[in-house]
Amino acid sequence: MRGTGYQLTQDVSSEHQEVLLCCVVIQHWDGDQRGCGRSCKQNEDQFYHEGAVELLVFNFLLILTILTIWLFKNHRFRFLHETGGAMVYGLVMGLIIRYATKTSDVENGTVYECEKLKSGPSSLLINITNQVYEYQYKREINRHNVNGHQGNAMLQKMTFDPSIFFSILLPPIIFHAGYSLKKRHFFRNLGSILTYAFLGTAISCIVIGLIMYGFVKAMVHIGQLKEWEFHFTDCLFFGSLMSATDPVTVLAIFNELHVDTDLYTLLFGESVLNDAVAIVLTYSISIYSPKENPNAFDAAAFFQSVGNFLGIFAGSFAMGSSYAVVTHLTKFTKLCEFPMLETGLFFLLSWSAFLSAEAAGLTGIVAVLFCGVTQAHYTYNNLSSDSKMRTKQLFEFMNFLAENVIFCYMGLALFTFQNHIFSPLFIFGAFLAVFVARACNIYPLTFLLNFGRKQKIPRNFQHMMMFSGLRGAIAFALAIQDTESQSKQMMFTTALLIVFFTVWVFGGGTTPMLTWLQIRVGVDPDEDVASNLDKNTTKAESAWLFRVWYVFDHRYLKPILTHAGPPLTTTLPGWCNPIARLLTSPSAYGDQLKNEDTDYIINNDELTKNYEASAQTPVPPQDRTGCSQATAKEDFCEGDLGLGEYKLQLEHTPGQTQLNLSTRTV
Amino acid sequence: MRGTGYQLTQDVSSEHQEVLLCCVVIQHWDGDQRGCGRSCKQNEDQFYHEGAVELLVFNFLLILTILTIWLFKNHRFRFLHETGGAMVYGLVMGLIIRYATKTSDVENGTVYECEKLKSGPSSLLINITNQVYEYQYKREINRHNVNGHQGNAMLQKMTFDPSIFFSILLPPIIFHAGYSLKKRHFFRNLGSILTYAFLGTAISCIVIGLIMYGFVKAMVHIGQLKEWEFHFTDCLFFGSLMSATDPVTVLAIFNELHVDTDLYTLLFGESVLNDAVAIVLTYSISIYSPKENPNAFDAAAFFQSVGNFLGIFAGSFAMGSSYAVVTHLTKFTKLCEFPMLETGLFFLLSWSAFLSAEAAGLTGIVAVLFCGVTQAHYTYNNLSSDSKMRTKQLFEFMNFLAENVIFCYMGLALFTFQNHIFSPLFIFGAFLAVFVARACNIYPLTFLLNFGRKQKIPRNFQHMMMFSGLRGAIAFALAIQDTESQSKQMMFTTALLIVFFTVWVFGGGTTPMLTWLQIRVGVDPDEDVASNLDKNTTKAESAWLFRVWYVFDHRYLKPILTHAGPPLTTTLPGWCNPIARLLTSPSAYGDQLKNEDTDYIINNDELTKNYEASAQTPVPPQDRTGCSQATAKEDFCEGDLGLGEYKLQLEHTPGQTQLNLSTRTV
Repeated sequence: MRGTGYQLTQDVSSEHQEVLLCCVVIQHWDGDQRGCGRSCKQNEDQFYHEGAVELLVFNFLLILTILTIWLFKNHRFRFLHETGGAMVYGLVMGLIIRYATKTSDVENGTVYECEKLKSGPSSLLINITNQVYEYQYKREINRHNVNGHQGNAMLQKMTFDPSIFFSILLPPIIFHAGYSLKKRHFFRNLGSILTYAFLGTAISCIVIGLIMYGFVKAMVHIGQLKEWEFHFTDCLFFGSLMSATDPVTVLAIFNELHVDTDLYTLLFGESVLNDAVAIVLTYSISIYSPKENPNAFDAAAFFQSVGNFLGIFAGSFAMGSSYAVVTHLTKFTKLCEFPMLETGLFFLLSWSAFLSAEAAGLTGIVAVLFCGVTQAHYTYNNLSSDSKMRTKQLFEFMNFLAENVIFCYMGLALFTFQNHIFSPLFIFGAFLAVFVARACNIYPLTFLLNFGRKQKIPRNFQHMMMFSGLRGAIAFALAIQDTESQSKQMMFTTALLIVFFTVWVFGGGTTPMLTWLQIRVGVDPDEDVASNLDKNTTKAESAWLFRVWYVFDHRYLKPILTHAGPPLTTTLPGWCNPIARLLTSPSAYGDQLKNEDTDYIINNDELTKNYEASAQTPVPPQDRTGCSQATAKEDFCEGDLGLGEYKLQLEHTPGQTQLNLSTRTV
Repeated sequence: MRGTGYQLTQDVSSEHQEVLLCCVVIQHWDGDQRGCGRSCKQNEDQFYHEGAVELLVFNFLLILTILTIWLFKNHRFRFLHETGGAMVYGLVMGLIIRYATKTSDVENGTVYECEKLKSGPSSLLINITNQVYEYQYKREINRHNVNGHQGNAMLQKMTFDPSIFFSILLPPIIFHAGYSLKKRHFFRNLGSILTYAFLGTAISCIVIGLIMYGFVKAMVHIGQLKEWEFHFTDCLFFGSLMSATDPVTVLAIFNELHVDTDLYTLLFGESVLNDAVAIVLTYSISIYSPKENPNAFDAAAFFQSVGNFLGIFAGSFAMGSSYAVVTHLTKFTKLCEFPMLETGLFFLLSWSAFLSAEAAGLTGIVAVLFCGVTQAHYTYNNLSSDSKMRTKQLFEFMNFLAENVIFCYMGLALFTFQNHIFSPLFIFGAFLAVFVARACNIYPLTFLLNFGRKQKIPRNFQHMMMFSGLRGAIAFALAIQDTESQSKQMMFTTALLIVFFTVWVFGGGTTPMLTWLQIRVGVDPDEDVASNLDKNTTKAESAWLFRVWYVFDHRYLKPILTHAGPPLTTTLPGWCNPIARLLTSPSAYGDQLKNEDTDYIINNDELTKNYEASAQTPVPPQDRTGCSQATAKEDFCEGDLGLGEYKLQLEHTPGQTQLNLSTRTV
């Protein structure tokens, strides 16, 4: 067969693709370098224009989504959140693209053979009819995925590179989540949130894995699946990716209706941390490699996975926090006189946290989450009032866009993704597993937690948390990361359907559910704190571990990293005085008396006293450049940072604060 | 020769590359689909991590730039703007990457031959050692560019796709320029600005083209260049791309020092419009194709180019404005109650203007410029006060980042771009041509304009405008678009050097030059208007053409598109009443008396009267959701939108306005 012009062979395993072999042709190069210009330009232009059309389609989908949501909001329909709306439009557009556009490219599923290459180089120069083209490595592809749709330019253009989700769309969402944590409530419920996030996610992962393994066994038994296609680790992988909850729809409604703050905080805190846990867990499971039988338990490999999990999680945490600490150094600069530079620095350092973690082989998403939390806790206090607003609005906006793009893309993916595998039994099993796992996560853990909590989590809150186990962007992004093998494709299809179902049905049912469970709405978060303090119910949460942390944070970290807190000269031992003086912000001395920063030390008398003091202390008017010094009053307000997603909280903008002041002092 | 395993042939025209031919091998496919997983994953991870490292390098460069600039600003050094600083850091980083990293990829400059393909498909499936890889079309490449550096992964990663400049980095810069036009001053000097932008750019293009043609002829004469490498159209192409001025450095200093507003407006307006003209001109010249001898004049092709220019310019203008008009429809919605949705819609529609123009084969940059101008003129009035601030800050921030990325990349490109051609004679000629062309643009046109202007442009202003002929982002982006042929590479290298020189030398010399030319600084723009009005000097500018436009805009467009202006019922003939009532905003009736919107009708008595009226009319306090109604006072202030690049202009934020009010009314 060798040596003929070209050859057409039938591939051994493939059914419907043809394999064309490159043929050997000695070509004459004519030396005219202008010849290429025109066609080359046209070719590029064509690709460029297709890119524009593709983005335009997304833009229109987002515009439609915004207009629909405005209509819904205006008429107070709460059964469809913008994310749900984005999915609907994506779905419709996907349908159109799938069935209304024709395969335009003739090179469908043609595989060219090439020797002399040992692995795929990052770029390939190919001489085609006397012109050299540069091709860039995109991905490795499985033979069975090479089908007729491969060459449809429109479908291909509409299919994002999966890494875009993890490197562009998710970071702003996750950072915003961390940056808008309602700190006070979060720290009060930290124990419960950590329990749900770590233990709960692990339980959920294992339960889903076990149930799915049962279904997979059954499918193998009835011949729907081959034994080697689905191992127990694959089931666990599916379990971990389906454990990432994303109740964005529910939280938006909670926020709008001002639902009980503790419930909000529990859900929000859980979903934020649980994303991080699920991402690292998924990665750890994907690199779990038992030496022999993939179904047998390999203790060494298991502990290596556990070690991986802990190492990656801790490493990402450290990376994220350390970048936030670097940003804190703005305390010593007068960068706040230039809000644009300050905002730029803030943005770039936060992004660097993500990139550094990725470059170091850690998980960027986790790093960026903790970077966000730390930035909100410390750096936010050092920012000028203008930068506070700018950063808040910038990340809010990026979050809004990224979220809608992802949900829109999910709708699209149902029709444009070319390798769906719909397996009814697997899908049924997955639905069952997800609900059972959520129940095994919430009810037993709450039962245990209620032993330790003074302020119990009531039954209706538990039901609401059970109900709010929506799956969203993270589960989708984890599932689409790898869709090469058939098992992964089955998981992706199933995950997509679960996301659709939970977002539409549970998201839409939030308001009726709230009514049905008689959960109180219209709660003012600050009032809530006050009433809780009166009832002296939060003591249980301020257990010794957190008291130690709070005191440490208040006495040492806050003074070092921000302008707030007592001067280090008073908190550090005498021999540290020179360093203490260097590190303490000059404003800390002035604020010493009035600024007993007890934001986190949940101690009734002190907090009440402090609140009164701050209410009576007039806030000094900020100068035009707005280098604000965190005062007790401001610190107290700041817990609400980013709470209002669409409702402007004008009270916290600098001008308005001044207005209140001026009317008060007049 | 055919039929052996593989063949090594010497390419006819190339000196240093080897051409490997794909060989024909029948491979056995073993059907195991799990085998690929690990290596494939690793491969992807590696590429992904390299991407993270690359972005991290850029991030660090930007962070360094910000810190340096802060240091400079803090010490009031004005000889280096951040764009200049970004270039310095880019240069250093480029040096490091170029000489400190090793070529890691073995596949250097190897060209593979492939038959069976008639043109480069958008994606290529290649079977390499039993695994199928997908490769994506990147570009067509000229044989002589295939050199040893081709495979250096780091250099390659650091080289952006040229289309990124035009599709991602430039649009926010240009939109921001349009959005932050100081309307009042702009319209007052519209005649002069249009003359400089259109006539001036054409003169500059032709003068540069002619001078360069002389130098090219000389180079051919002494044997440095081959005749067929450089035609007159290439010289004109170079002329048009070098005609895009970008005095960002100068304008930043003007802004900081509050230089005379008319000079600022003339320079800013010229540079903004001149970019649009240069871009369309460059495109028109690049598609100019005389039928026979490329050096001879072909009247038909010439007029076709002129037609192309006009068509593309007008089309892009129409596209951009029409999207802005679509955004105006927000007037009829209550979208302003949801600032986030409003900001999102504003952003997406503005971006859609760009994408639509690109998809339609027009120039997106021009569309986005006019979209920005129109948005600022009309839509800005309909936005809620919160959205006004959000959009302003968002685009300011994007502009800041994009600008610094571009200038940083310019520094990098000097060392990382792999096909520089330094031709001393050509470079000398280009420097000469650029300065002569700038002189031929400014002095004769100003001489002519001064005949028509009551308020002459003085000698020192002319010298300053001559001095401010910096080249920047647009010239660079136009030059890097196509670097395939040797002539284009020579142009790119030369353009890069001119950008470096002008930004550093002229940008750094702005402050001394201002002092030397005795141009007054510290001018308050509003005072400036008042003093001009007193001197009754602006009448010449309000010539009949502009008066007609002003009246039309004031009577019909403003009432239709915004909440401001007199009700249409009073300006339209009686029989239009039903439509007029439908289109007029309810608030227009209320504001009718006080809101004689004479922002652009430069008529002394009227404007002064109006200014007094607005100063006496208390601005109604805005409600929390901030659906503001454009009042005369606000309209008057809004001319300064986005003027302060780094200095927050707190006076225009809603809270502050209220503060002023409250102190005044108390």
